[in-house]
Amino acid sequence: MAKLVECIPNFSEGRRKEVIEAIADAIRSVKGVRLLDFSSDESHNRSVFTFVGDPDAVKEAAFASASKAAQLIDMTKHKGEHPRMGAVDVIPFVPVKGITMEECVQISREVGERIAGELSIPVFLYEESATRPERKNLADIRRGEFEGMAKKIKDPAWAPDFGKPEIHPTAGAVAVGARMPLIAYNVNLNTSDVNIAKNIAKVIRESGGGLKNVKAIGVMLEDRNIAQVSMNMTNYEKTALYRAFELIRIEARRYGVDIIGSEIVGITPMKALIDVAKYYLQLENFDDSKQILENYLIAE
Amino acid sequence: MAKLVECIPNFSEGRRKEVIEAIADAIRSVKGVRLLDFSSDESHNRSVFTFVGDPDAVKEAAFASASKAAQLIDMTKHKGEHPRMGAVDVIPFVPVKGITMEECVQISREVGERIAGELSIPVFLYEESATRPERKNLADIRRGEFEGMAKKIKDPAWAPDFGKPEIHPTAGAVAVGARMPLIAYNVNLNTSDVNIAKNIAKVIRESGGGLKNVKAIGVMLEDRNIAQVSMNMTNYEKTALYRAFELIRIEARRYGVDIIGSEIVGITPMKALIDVAKYYLQLENFDDSKQILENYLIAE
Repeated sequence: MAKLVECIPNFSEGRRKEVIEAIADAIRSVKGVRLLDFSSDESHNRSVFTFVGDPDAVKEAAFASASKAAQLIDMTKHKGEHPRMGAVDVIPFVPVKGITMEECVQISREVGERIAGELSIPVFLYEESATRPERKNLADIRRGEFEGMAKKIKDPAWAPDFGKPEIHPTAGAVAVGARMPLIAYNVNLNTSDVNIAKNIAKVIRESGGGLKNVKAIGVMLEDRNIAQVSMNMTNYEKTALYRAFELIRIEARRYGVDIIGSEIVGITPMKALIDVAKYYLQLENFDDSKQILENYLIAE
Repeated sequence: MAKLVECIPNFSEGRRKEVIEAIADAIRSVKGVRLLDFSSDESHNRSVFTFVGDPDAVKEAAFASASKAAQLIDMTKHKGEHPRMGAVDVIPFVPVKGITMEECVQISREVGERIAGELSIPVFLYEESATRPERKNLADIRRGEFEGMAKKIKDPAWAPDFGKPEIHPTAGAVAVGARMPLIAYNVNLNTSDVNIAKNIAKVIRESGGGLKNVKAIGVMLEDRNIAQVSMNMTNYEKTALYRAFELIRIEARRYGVDIIGSEIVGITPMKALIDVAKYYLQLENFDDSKQILENYLIAE
């Protein structure tokens, strides 16, 4: 069976279209890779790309995009709302079909080693690839951002997993690793008070005593004048989307607020939505692998 | 792009395993066809097969299975709970990918003509292939069942679309046509009073002033001692599963009854469940074709 890996690199460029296109072309130029999606955020000054393919092709495309980003993005001049430490900020590999998490960890090590060796960018292995518990979480590695990294990397506790303990002068540092697919899921509330969304986010996220596998912040959608709970669902198989949705509804009630809608940003595995349908329809004995037509049509 | 057609023939045999296997083998023997599923019901004395493939292969497999059924099943000896008129009772063709309903209608005509010509079984074209409005609905064609068909077929109003106006002595008659995918969807109630399920079915089905595209009956699940509303959702894109589910809940309330679960029998297109998830999560701006990972993995 063909092995399929997904890669979702984030780059510190969300404004200059020619740079974003150059990175897209670097990915597209690799045979065996399909660029599924990419989106950019101008205020974050950041772009997220999603591509899939067989392991060798995905490794090549990940390296090629990192190389292109290092050529074109100068972190000493970078300003943006989203925390960042490098021109290519993070490269996660996700198992899709016929490949284990362990194999994806191995892929991340090989790509990390090559980036450090050929591009002189120091690499931190994170998530399932992390070499120490303190490095599992991207936010902890990235704390201090690009500006603080030259000093942080000299600390033995933050010696890079590949490369010398010094940042690339314009490309900074990068985190590379393997993880479960995560789903970017936002819930919109019928209030323009962003503090309500922030309060809800604080209590529903794992770190606040809420749901495991949920990271959440409250943000304001200026154009719609409504507040939003913005989440990363880091393990949708264990912690389904409906559970966060319903818990937010329950928490919002104390403020006299309700949910007016939700949105998934980027790509989701079908299963995340199938599990939602199975919950609300109280479906019994439903076997996804046998009863969903499309599962028979997916290329072997 | 490869054209994919689905065929879901029903046969009047649900008890003799060797007959069911022989029909399965007839389908499997055709190159380019995948037999996805088949299930049998002993009290109905009926089996349903689901297979997909390119148009030519599916036409060949449909004919081969009809031929095998005509050889092995003798309707003069057939007894079963489900209404039936032939050894091969109905052959629907459903467009799956890269093929129009009109092309599927054409496929049904070609297979119908061949069945009448080579097997001497009279054929009625139904659903989207129907030559008269009175023939659209399978139940209307089949009314009178096998036992009444020898006489019914002499009536000019029921002259077959292919073949002479006489039944095959042991194989009866068959309906062949093209239709949208339908979903067999059952909702289980927390009551053992089957009349409640029958009453609910009567008002929620299209013919009773309920939801368009819903056929429903109330049945008893003897083994679980609970009543069930058993439905065919004949156009899940227009009339989504959640709408029937919620309407049943509303109708059940008058009896102090609630839904304890539901089940999908056989195969469903992914979209039917994605649409359910989109309703309950109040999803905004979700583009199935771009945002579901598996849609990128389906073979071209």
